[in-house]
Amino acid sequence: MKRIQGGVCAPKGFKANGIYCGIKKPGIDNQNPNLKHKNDLGLIFSDTLCATAAVYTTNKVKGAPIIVTKRNLEKTANKSRAVIVNSKNANTCNADGEEKANEMCSLTAKELGILPEEVIVASTGVIGQVLPIEPIRNGISKLAAGLAYDKNGEAATAIMTTDTVKKEYAVEFEIGGRVCRIGGMAKGSGMIHPNMATTLNFITTDAAVSAEMLQKALDETVKITYNCLSIDGDTSTNDMVSLMANGLAGNDEIMKADSDFEIFKDALYEVMMNLTRMLAKDGEGASKLLECICTGCPTKDDAITVAKSVVGSTLFKCALFGEDANCGRILCAIGYADAEFDMNAVDVDMKSEYGRIEVFRKGACLEFSEDKAAKILSSDEIQVIINLNQGKESATAWGCDLTYDYVKINGDYRT
Amino acid sequence: MKRIQGGVCAPKGFKANGIYCGIKKPGIDNQNPNLKHKNDLGLIFSDTLCATAAVYTTNKVKGAPIIVTKRNLEKTANKSRAVIVNSKNANTCNADGEEKANEMCSLTAKELGILPEEVIVASTGVIGQVLPIEPIRNGISKLAAGLAYDKNGEAATAIMTTDTVKKEYAVEFEIGGRVCRIGGMAKGSGMIHPNMATTLNFITTDAAVSAEMLQKALDETVKITYNCLSIDGDTSTNDMVSLMANGLAGNDEIMKADSDFEIFKDALYEVMMNLTRMLAKDGEGASKLLECICTGCPTKDDAITVAKSVVGSTLFKCALFGEDANCGRILCAIGYADAEFDMNAVDVDMKSEYGRIEVFRKGACLEFSEDKAAKILSSDEIQVIINLNQGKESATAWGCDLTYDYVKINGDYRT
Repeated sequence: MKRIQGGVCAPKGFKANGIYCGIKKPGIDNQNPNLKHKNDLGLIFSDTLCATAAVYTTNKVKGAPIIVTKRNLEKTANKSRAVIVNSKNANTCNADGEEKANEMCSLTAKELGILPEEVIVASTGVIGQVLPIEPIRNGISKLAAGLAYDKNGEAATAIMTTDTVKKEYAVEFEIGGRVCRIGGMAKGSGMIHPNMATTLNFITTDAAVSAEMLQKALDETVKITYNCLSIDGDTSTNDMVSLMANGLAGNDEIMKADSDFEIFKDALYEVMMNLTRMLAKDGEGASKLLECICTGCPTKDDAITVAKSVVGSTLFKCALFGEDANCGRILCAIGYADAEFDMNAVDVDMKSEYGRIEVFRKGACLEFSEDKAAKILSSDEIQVIINLNQGKESATAWGCDLTYDYVKINGDYRT
Repeated sequence: MKRIQGGVCAPKGFKANGIYCGIKKPGIDNQNPNLKHKNDLGLIFSDTLCATAAVYTTNKVKGAPIIVTKRNLEKTANKSRAVIVNSKNANTCNADGEEKANEMCSLTAKELGILPEEVIVASTGVIGQVLPIEPIRNGISKLAAGLAYDKNGEAATAIMTTDTVKKEYAVEFEIGGRVCRIGGMAKGSGMIHPNMATTLNFITTDAAVSAEMLQKALDETVKITYNCLSIDGDTSTNDMVSLMANGLAGNDEIMKADSDFEIFKDALYEVMMNLTRMLAKDGEGASKLLECICTGCPTKDDAITVAKSVVGSTLFKCALFGEDANCGRILCAIGYADAEFDMNAVDVDMKSEYGRIEVFRKGACLEFSEDKAAKILSSDEIQVIINLNQGKESATAWGCDLTYDYVKINGDYRT
């Protein structure tokens, strides 16, 4: 398996495009202070019908696009050909939400000559404001006309809200001698917390995989990637991951959990894990990526719980921003994780490209060089490495620091 | 029942004192930038032996004082006469923690002529730094010599860390014709989150109550006061509430859950609820108190869960700081609360001294006057009022906004 350039267009037979249609305000946009990206409508289109898997938010408030996409995939028995997605407005908690989401599907289907239920629809942005549909009606022809096999970047920028960089990742691997590819794009960067399909993520592959096995691979991989990510503890109403497989790589269709399935799942993990890291590093206001690796655990779930507890600690996130090697904050977060283990056996180290220090052994914080700690924490990627020393399971969770900019961005998000 | 002046000295027979002994750094102290309070060692002493109840942190990392206090109360079958408490250093995750906590008890007992196991010991401050015991050895005589029936304020300032104001509350009520009092003091103001006995809280009463009924009253009241408070989602290693009853009011001892018990519990609620509000309002960096009242719920636990979810939402806390009436943030937090209910029946209003607006009805955010909303949110006490319209239970949770100052305080907490 190797990383390759590109995103959702990396696999064979997937076109994409993104345009500015007018949902975002022209000129200054506080969700996009840098004006580095201004697309607000994106499209992905497969040359052939795709087996499709999806995971949705667990929030009881579900965006209208989530409801409509779920219904569409039920109608088609998990087949799809296109994704239509807008940013700036979440089309959630509006009386006319489903009507608008359905119209987005119809408009897209008509342009592409497919059925409305073959369209996955998604929206991201402000909740509780009516979605202006006119810009989409007016822009859809241009969006479809511009579809190309290399415009994944245009689509990836169209889903950005407070993101400062677009997030794409793609890999190439072989199944039964056939070259296969998986590509993905994701958006952050606030309202992100485990127990869901975090954020909007669209993944494509040309591998042939049955809808059932595709869903199994997605469920298992979401658990150890997106669901191990926390920016701010808030679970969005519009989270969705979709995974479309058009089979154009020509491999024998993966129908059961055999060795081909494992190869596919490893490749999918590589794409989703790297998108997860990108989301963490570009968390709202973030200046540092925090990666917590928890090993030596009795169960996988314990490992996930402890690692997530550390990346979710508001106090440790602040300490990280201040580059303060506050051992107590890490210990406290390990201690309130909802898992059973003996704290007196636990080891904790901190690490970055600039070195590694031991901070906790046998129930007590160690003395360490504050200079060395400061040097390690000056990196923009910090690892906290925990060994419970009471089992063989491990997991990684991802997060970021809590900064003035996070508060600034979210103190005035709507206007 | 009526509120009266004072704190832990309000009930008969309780003396207190607080001094600066030298644990805090002299001069500028970043935990105490205003230098309005500089005491770091506090003492409460009852004229007679007290029935005692306590609730401790659920964090697996427990401060040494927690372990020692628990052991002391086991030895005495829940009797105590004194509380010794220091701030600035939590005496947690240190190899010599229990030894130091025990010495604090011995030093106190010797000065007061009581048994070491009749002392409740507590510490609050930085985790993982060795507690300097010399200042306590040197200061204990002065501290004990200065005990007085009106120095509750000195004790209340001795437990402050990042608190900007001291927190005391007291009430007077009657049981069987006897005048009884309950008084309390509390410290905040970070590392505060439900599922524990939040922060350090010391409560005294002259009512006669058996140790067993005292514990029952405390457990039931903690659940709906301190455990409904969240500043930052971090559960401290040193949280403790103690409740001492010396019986000097002369009422017939409360031995069972009768009407006297209910009167006592109502008074205890009044003290603990008001201390909870004070803790929320003085949360680290906070500029606003957030009170979420959730009514119309199928169960009490559902009401608590939903109310806590809203006050715990990082995004809504930022919106509150920005005085942004972001209905979507509230809805999102209600939606991810771990309780089963129908979102389409839910009503949400926002309220303050400046008025009330309806923001959500029947599954959709309402349009409202932004001017009126801005006026309401300009208050320093904001209420979010939720009616699930699917039952008769209700609960309140307390929190605060998330500000630049929170990040600043916690970016550099140790130095």
